[in-house]
Amino acid sequence: MASPEIEALTQALSRLPGLGPRSARRAVLHLLKRRESALEPLLRALDAVNERLVTCGICGNVDTVDPCGICADQRRDARALCVVEDVADLWALDKSRLFPGRFHVLGGRLSALEGVRPEDLSIDALVARVEAGGIDEVVLAMNATLEGQTTAHYLAERLERFPVRLTQLAHGVPVGGELDYLDEGTLAQALRARRPLG
Amino acid sequence: MASPEIEALTQALSRLPGLGPRSARRAVLHLLKRRESALEPLLRALDAVNERLVTCGICGNVDTVDPCGICADQRRDARALCVVEDVADLWALDKSRLFPGRFHVLGGRLSALEGVRPEDLSIDALVARVEAGGIDEVVLAMNATLEGQTTAHYLAERLERFPVRLTQLAHGVPVGGELDYLDEGTLAQALRARRPLG
Ligand SMILES: [Zn+2]
Ligand SMILES: [Zn+2]
Repeated sequence: MASPEIEALTQALSRLPGLGPRSARRAVLHLLKRRESALEPLLRALDAVNERLVTCGICGNVDTVDPCGICADQRRDARALCVVEDVADLWALDKSRLFPGRFHVLGGRLSALEGVRPEDLSIDALVARVEAGGIDEVVLAMNATLEGQTTAHYLAERLERFPVRLTQLAHGVPVGGELDYLDEGTLAQALRARRPLG
Repeated sequence: MASPEIEALTQALSRLPGLGPRSARRAVLHLLKRRESALEPLLRALDAVNERLVTCGICGNVDTVDPCGICADQRRDARALCVVEDVADLWALDKSRLFPGRFHVLGGRLSALEGVRPEDLSIDALVARVEAGGIDEVVLAMNATLEGQTTAHYLAERLERFPVRLTQLAHGVPVGGELDYLDEGTLAQALRARRPLG
């Protein structure tokens, strides 16, 4: 039987998405065999993330500063706001400056199955940002899943009373596809061809 | 683009076996969303492993003490020695005390393909343990892979001049199978039916 320290590490790793108990054990073995080249770098990287990163109070991005670098960047187009489900979607869209505006991270999508309701997401904060004015266009860049699209329609209803153009990503995002799994070319095309919400 | 801290953590995680760059990014997102319930426990578990665990100078096991708990346990049968490729194999065999004796961890298996030679493994130390005497049986519990079996035959040649019984795990370990992927029942059966090395 492995020591309690190893059991605890195996358990912590096995809770990561994509790693089951077996592969977590393999990962632990890998780390133990490569303490200087794998375990210590991972430890330092985790520690840095834990110590240095904060969630932006405006948009929900994760950065070393609050407001985040994107919200604080005055060269960004403040009139365009792109709403995404998760921080990883923001990262995907922000690569190579595909989108010149700012972002709003919902922190998930509405899901009857998983009991995620509007009040569980950063939706009131989004409405408040739009209500505050200065925004011409809101891109609803949800994932092309049923739940993502349900969320987009809910947001469209909540935002229809404001004088903003609501758009969504063009077809090009494969049905059932998730944004942060797409290559940059596909994302760029979907963003260029974005259209008003039907 | 994500912050350098996040990029570094994604890189460190993507080097783990079983996690590619995409799933590492998912894992980072998961950790960022659950700082108290996932990131901090993982950080503490890694830190504990890094701070507290040492490699046993006798057998190569990983434990909080050196010699390890197994080597120091006087109730163990000192006359039986089980040789395994990796620490994970030792853990698998030591579960529920399947094997009453002690262990020797080689730290891998001979591999022409990966350039792993006898001197890269803990083989001289194994020979020295057997040469020191007091051991009646050496179980060569390599994986049932081509490389595992090649390693077992090499070890058999190195150990044949000593008055010890060389055995190997019985058929029951599926061909191509690796020990630490097997359920306990299969392992127990293979161990019970172990036979002299042909
Ligand atoms: Zn921000
Ligand atoms: Zn030991």
